[in-house]
Amino acid sequence: MKVSKLLGERFKNAPSDCLIESHKLMVRGGYMKYMANGIYSLFMPTRRITRKIENIIREEMDNIDGQEVLFPVVMPASLWEESGRYYSIGSEMARFTDRNNNKMVLGMTHEEAAVHLAKDTAQSYTNYPFMIYQFQTKFRDEPRARGGLIRVREFTMKDAYSFHTSQEDLEEYYEKAFKAYERIFKRAGAKNVISVKSDSGMMGGSISHEFMLLTDIGEDSLAICPECSFRANMEAAPCLIENQPGEVEPLEKIHTPDVKTIDDLCKFLNTDVKSFGKAVVYQKNANDEYVVVFIRGDLEVNETKLRNYLGEEIHPAQNIITEECGIVPGFIGPVGLTDRAVVVYDSSLKGINSMVCGANEVDYHYTGINLGRDVGEVEYADVAKIYEGAVCPECGKPIVTIKRGIEVGNIFQLGTKYTKAMDMTYLDNQGKAQNPIMGCYGIGVGRLAASICEESHDDYGPIWPMPIAPWQVEICNLKAKDERVSAACEGLYKELTDMGVEVLYDDRPVRPGFMFADADLFGVPVRVVVSPKTLDRNCYEISYRDKSYKGDLPVENAAAEIKNMVRSILDQYKF
Amino acid sequence: MKVSKLLGERFKNAPSDCLIESHKLMVRGGYMKYMANGIYSLFMPTRRITRKIENIIREEMDNIDGQEVLFPVVMPASLWEESGRYYSIGSEMARFTDRNNNKMVLGMTHEEAAVHLAKDTAQSYTNYPFMIYQFQTKFRDEPRARGGLIRVREFTMKDAYSFHTSQEDLEEYYEKAFKAYERIFKRAGAKNVISVKSDSGMMGGSISHEFMLLTDIGEDSLAICPECSFRANMEAAPCLIENQPGEVEPLEKIHTPDVKTIDDLCKFLNTDVKSFGKAVVYQKNANDEYVVVFIRGDLEVNETKLRNYLGEEIHPAQNIITEECGIVPGFIGPVGLTDRAVVVYDSSLKGINSMVCGANEVDYHYTGINLGRDVGEVEYADVAKIYEGAVCPECGKPIVTIKRGIEVGNIFQLGTKYTKAMDMTYLDNQGKAQNPIMGCYGIGVGRLAASICEESHDDYGPIWPMPIAPWQVEICNLKAKDERVSAACEGLYKELTDMGVEVLYDDRPVRPGFMFADADLFGVPVRVVVSPKTLDRNCYEISYRDKSYKGDLPVENAAAEIKNMVRSILDQYKF
Repeated sequence: MKVSKLLGERFKNAPSDCLIESHKLMVRGGYMKYMANGIYSLFMPTRRITRKIENIIREEMDNIDGQEVLFPVVMPASLWEESGRYYSIGSEMARFTDRNNNKMVLGMTHEEAAVHLAKDTAQSYTNYPFMIYQFQTKFRDEPRARGGLIRVREFTMKDAYSFHTSQEDLEEYYEKAFKAYERIFKRAGAKNVISVKSDSGMMGGSISHEFMLLTDIGEDSLAICPECSFRANMEAAPCLIENQPGEVEPLEKIHTPDVKTIDDLCKFLNTDVKSFGKAVVYQKNANDEYVVVFIRGDLEVNETKLRNYLGEEIHPAQNIITEECGIVPGFIGPVGLTDRAVVVYDSSLKGINSMVCGANEVDYHYTGINLGRDVGEVEYADVAKIYEGAVCPECGKPIVTIKRGIEVGNIFQLGTKYTKAMDMTYLDNQGKAQNPIMGCYGIGVGRLAASICEESHDDYGPIWPMPIAPWQVEICNLKAKDERVSAACEGLYKELTDMGVEVLYDDRPVRPGFMFADADLFGVPVRVVVSPKTLDRNCYEISYRDKSYKGDLPVENAAAEIKNMVRSILDQYKF
Repeated sequence: MKVSKLLGERFKNAPSDCLIESHKLMVRGGYMKYMANGIYSLFMPTRRITRKIENIIREEMDNIDGQEVLFPVVMPASLWEESGRYYSIGSEMARFTDRNNNKMVLGMTHEEAAVHLAKDTAQSYTNYPFMIYQFQTKFRDEPRARGGLIRVREFTMKDAYSFHTSQEDLEEYYEKAFKAYERIFKRAGAKNVISVKSDSGMMGGSISHEFMLLTDIGEDSLAICPECSFRANMEAAPCLIENQPGEVEPLEKIHTPDVKTIDDLCKFLNTDVKSFGKAVVYQKNANDEYVVVFIRGDLEVNETKLRNYLGEEIHPAQNIITEECGIVPGFIGPVGLTDRAVVVYDSSLKGINSMVCGANEVDYHYTGINLGRDVGEVEYADVAKIYEGAVCPECGKPIVTIKRGIEVGNIFQLGTKYTKAMDMTYLDNQGKAQNPIMGCYGIGVGRLAASICEESHDDYGPIWPMPIAPWQVEICNLKAKDERVSAACEGLYKELTDMGVEVLYDDRPVRPGFMFADADLFGVPVRVVVSPKTLDRNCYEISYRDKSYKGDLPVENAAAEIKNMVRSILDQYKF
C-alpha cells in the first residue's frame, strides 16, 4: 500500500475528549472515525489489524473443534422472550418494530440464537459435545461508551457456545477453551493478560473467568495475590476478615451531637474505625424496599456481591425520609432498627465483641454492641470489597494487591439456563430427555486491538506487535523526487510484496520529520529508510519500531534479509 | 471435520414453502436455519462457502487497489438526513431510537458512511482516486423475502465505493471494477453470469450494470440480443418500434356496446391490435394525480421507465371514480380526455396514421385517430416493456430474447449525488473546491452462494464448485465398525489434513445409502469411498460429485494423488 493513496489523515494532536493513550493515538494515526456516540468507522490499518486478530482467534477456535457459523444481527423478540432476557435486559438492548409490526431486537450476544440453531439438530447424546462460534457485529446501547474502541456500542465479537452432556465434560472443554484463550492473547502480542475469576452478571451460570489486560486505565479492579495463584475480579473476590474479638462491654447509648463523620466519631469515642459498624443503605429496584448493610467501618460494600446475595437488582438509596421508613440517616444501627428494611450483616462484623453503631435516633450512638447478645443470631454474608493488603482467600497471606485491567475476553460455564428456558433436549444413553449444559466464550476484536495499543505504544504512536501489525514493513522514501531513491524504493516494494511481505510504502514527497512522525503513528514493526545517503553507502537503514534494533542493511539481497527479519520476529509469537 | 460432530441435520424432504431448488437443497442439507422472515442462521458448511467467496472478492478488490474498511451497521439518522435518503427511503429501512432518544437506522447500504469516512481526509486532488470497501451485515426490511438466501432481509454484502476527480477517471476505474467482477464470478465457479445495463433505482447516478446469473427462477427479466452485445435489464431496456404508417382515415366515433376486451374490439372492428391505442392509468404517489399512458395495444408499460421519465414514484391506479376525475375506465382515449391527468404517449404510437382508442364515453370508441391531426403535437416517451422478438437497440435485428436472472452483483456510476448532498470537497490542481465523483460496487455474498447452488445441483444436492466448496474432499467410511477400514480412513484424513487439503470425514456407523445421500447434500467435489471391498483391492474409490470421474486409486501414495486432483480442479478456476 502506498501512503499517498491511503485514506485517513494523521494529526499532531488528538481531540481533547480522547482521555486514554490508545484512543488518542488511534485517532491521531487515522485508525478510526467517530460517527456517533460509541459508533466508529474503521480505516484500512485498523481493519487489517482486526482481521489478523480474527484469523488468530479462528485458528484457535478451529483447533478446539469449533464450527464457525453465523447468527443474525437482527433477531425476533420472540426468541428473547423464550429465554426471558427480552424482559430482564433493559435499555442496553436496541429494539424496533419491523414493517409487519413484529418486535425485533439487535443481538447483544447470541446464546438464544445458538440454542435456536442447535436445538432439533443435536438430539442424541452421540452428537455431543460440540462448539459453534461466529464473528459478528453486536450492538449494546451502552450508557457510557468511552475510550475509543475500548468501550463502544457497536463492535465485532467472536462469540462461541459449547454444548455438553455432563458438567465434567463442560469443565474439560472449559479448560481447553481457557488454554486457547491464553494462546490467542499471546499470539496477538498482548503481553499483560491475566485470567481472573469473575462474576457472571447477566449471562447466568456459575463459574466464569475474565481475561484482563493489565493497565492503569482499565475499568475493572482486580484482586491479585503476588505469591499464589489467586486472581479475581474485585466484583467476585471474597473478602476474608479476621477480627480481634476484644472485651465484651455493656451496651451504652451515647449522645454524639455535631459528630458528622466516622473519623470524628472515632476521635470523639477514642476508638478504632474497625470497631465501628457502618450502615450503608440501598433500595431494591423492583419495589424500592430498603436494604441496610452493616459493615466494618473501614470497609466498602461490593454491590455486585450484595446483588448476588440478595438475588435481585439494587441501587444506592437516595433521599431517605426518616418518618416514612423509620431509618435515621447518619445514626443507623442494628439495635432498635425498623423492621421495614432488609438487614444484611457483612462477615467483617463477625467476632467483634463490642461495636459502635448508630442508635436509630438523631445524635445518638450505641457503644458496646454485641450482635449475638443485643440483636440475636444473625446471618453473616460476604458483601465487602476486597482491598489492598487484604487476606488472600487462597494462601491466607495479607498481601492482596489491587490492579486495574481491561476485560479482553471472558468464558462462562452457563449450565442449563438457556437450554431449559428454550426447551432444548437430547436423549441420553438411557433414552431419557436431558437439557444440554452450555459454556460460552467471548472476545471483543476491536477492544483487543485498542487494548494492545494501550499497552504497546510510546509518545509517538502505537508499537504494533508483528502478528497483528497492519503492515510488517514500512519503506520510507526520504527523497521521492530523486529518481535513484524512488527506483530503489519501488524495486524493494515490489520485491518484498512478491515475496508475501506486507509493505506500507511512504512514497510522498514530504520532509523526513513529517514522514517519520507518520511512520511512528502507523506503528509498523520494521522500518526501511531509503535516501541518497543510504544509497551512497549502498545500504538501506533498518530500524524496529520498538527501538530494539537499528542498523544498515546492504542493498544486495536486502529483500530476503528483511523477509527473514519479519519471519524471526513472527516466530517469537509462536506458542 | 467429522460428520458425527457436525452440527446440522440432513432431511429427505424439504418443507413445502421452499419453492426453488437451491432453497430446498440448502434446507435439506443442513446449510441454514430459518429464524424469522428473511432472517437465517448459517451452519458451518455455509459459513465456509461464504468465507471462501469473501476471500475471492477480497483478493479481487485488493487487486484493484481497494482498501478494506469497516462501517457501522447502526448509524445515526442524521447522516441519512444529510443525503436525503432518510426521507426518500420508506419502510425498507429499519429505524429505532436509542436510549438517549437519538434516531438511528440500520444500514441498507453505505454511501453515506463512505462519504462520512472519506470526507475531511481526502482534501487534495493528489489523494484521488481511491476505493474503500467492506464486508458488512445489511438489513433491508424487504416486503417479499423469498427463496432462502436469494432474497433475505439480513445479509452480508461486500460494498465498495470509489472516489474520483473526473468522469473519465471514474469510467476508467468502473471498467477495472467491471473486469474484477467478471473474475470474481468465474473464480467462484458461477458459470452463467452475464452483465446487463440496469436502472439505477434508489442509488442515484446514471450508468450502472448488473451481473446476472441466468436461471429460470430469477426475479429479473433480461433483454438479450443473441447476435450482438446488447444486454439489459428489462427495466432499463429501450423498446424500439417501427410502425407501418397505414392510411390516414377520418376520425369516427363508434358505438361499441358489450365489447369488453381489446381482443373483442379488434374482432368487432376487424382491425389489428397494433392499431389500437391502449390506455394504462397510474397515480403519482406524492399527490394521487392520475397519469394516463397511451401505448400500442400489444405492448406493456415498463413502470421503471415510466417512473424515470416522470421523475417520481407512481403506482397503478385503483378504483377510478369517473365523476371525480373525468376518466372513463375501459373507454379512455386521447381525444377529449380530461385535462386533470398527466398524459404520456409511448413511442410505440409514433407513426401510426390511424388508430383506435376509447372515446372517453361509456360504450364508445374512436377509429381513425391521427394524433398529430386530432390531438396536436405530442411528446413521445419510451415507456414500453421490451419483449421476445423485439428490435435489438444495438444491432437493429428483431431478435431480442428475454431471459430470467438473479442479480448477483451491481456496479453504479453515482456521480456527485452524495458528495454534493453531504458537502464533500477536495481542492483541484487550480486550488478550486470540487465535489468528488463516486462509483459504487456491491455483491451479496449469501445470495451468490445460493445462486451458484441454483445453477449447480442435481436432484440429490448441490454440486459445489471446488473454489467455494465447504470441503474439498469427503471421505466416506462405509464400515465404521471395521477397524481396518476406520484405521485407513483416519490415516487418510490425517494425512490429507496435514497436507492442507480440506476434508470432511463421514465417520458414522450408518448404511452406505444413507451416507451417500448425505454426501450428495454436502456437495463436496471429490469423494473417497473406503470399505472392506476397496481395501481388499488395495484401493480407495474416487468419484467426483459432478460425475465427471469415477475410478479406483491405489492406497499407496493416495493422499498425494488426491491433493493433486484437488489442485488440478482448482486450476480450472484460475483467471
